[in-house]
Amino acid sequence: MLPLNLHHTAIAVRDLDKALREVATLFGVEPLTREIVDEQGVEEAMVPFGGSFLQLLMPLDADTPVGRFLDRRGEGLHHVAIQVADIDAALAHLESDGVELVDRTPRSGGGGNRIAFVHPRALSGTLIELIEVH
Amino acid sequence: MLPLNLHHTAIAVRDLDKALREVATLFGVEPLTREIVDEQGVEEAMVPFGGSFLQLLMPLDADTPVGRFLDRRGEGLHHVAIQVADIDAALAHLESDGVELVDRTPRSGGGGNRIAFVHPRALSGTLIELIEVH
Repeated sequence: MLPLNLHHTAIAVRDLDKALREVATLFGVEPLTREIVDEQGVEEAMVPFGGSFLQLLMPLDADTPVGRFLDRRGEGLHHVAIQVADIDAALAHLESDGVELVDRTPRSGGGGNRIAFVHPRALSGTLIELIEVH
Repeated sequence: MLPLNLHHTAIAVRDLDKALREVATLFGVEPLTREIVDEQGVEEAMVPFGGSFLQLLMPLDADTPVGRFLDRRGEGLHHVAIQVADIDAALAHLESDGVELVDRTPRSGGGGNRIAFVHPRALSGTLIELIEVH
């Protein structure tokens, strides 16, 4: 597959308003978008930094992937998202190479983009999201 | 301060060769640079993804910041680096705003770049590096 860009790096937070105030204090940057993504169980904000984003993720409740992450690990870096041109082709390629996937088919992310997660075991404990941007 | 770009996202690894093989399997991408940075106590590789990099960090020994991170947290995402035009001005601005800094003056990072870390308490548990690229 051809990776196009490091699209975003995601941070799991307990309080999205507080985190956005911290980002504004540090960098003077406001979010480009903020939305609830029911399928992921989060409210998320995308803060632009040049060609990439910081994504702030707040769980909608404790019994969600990000909610369980916060319980287990606390606030902090959650995943990194690599943009690809064709996520179906990328997943087929990875599966044929025996890479361990969380999602074998894409699901809906924020902004109507198509996303899928690769298992952290595939890259030294790091959760990787693939994202096809529309 | 004016943040220019999300310059890189760093992953702490125990075995740099293995991590680079994993990145090659996943994305077919090779590192642009690989070097020992004595001042940081790491061997690091920079893997390009469009306008940003994944940085892989392997500690030179256990008694280093990244070595202690691996003992405490295991492998995985370590920090995110935001590129600024003038790191001295950025640090002065943050200090005047009362932001908690790890480094009040810049130190030498890989590639001869000037870097400084902001304390994770300033952004929801996330270690932020500022980087002035040369």
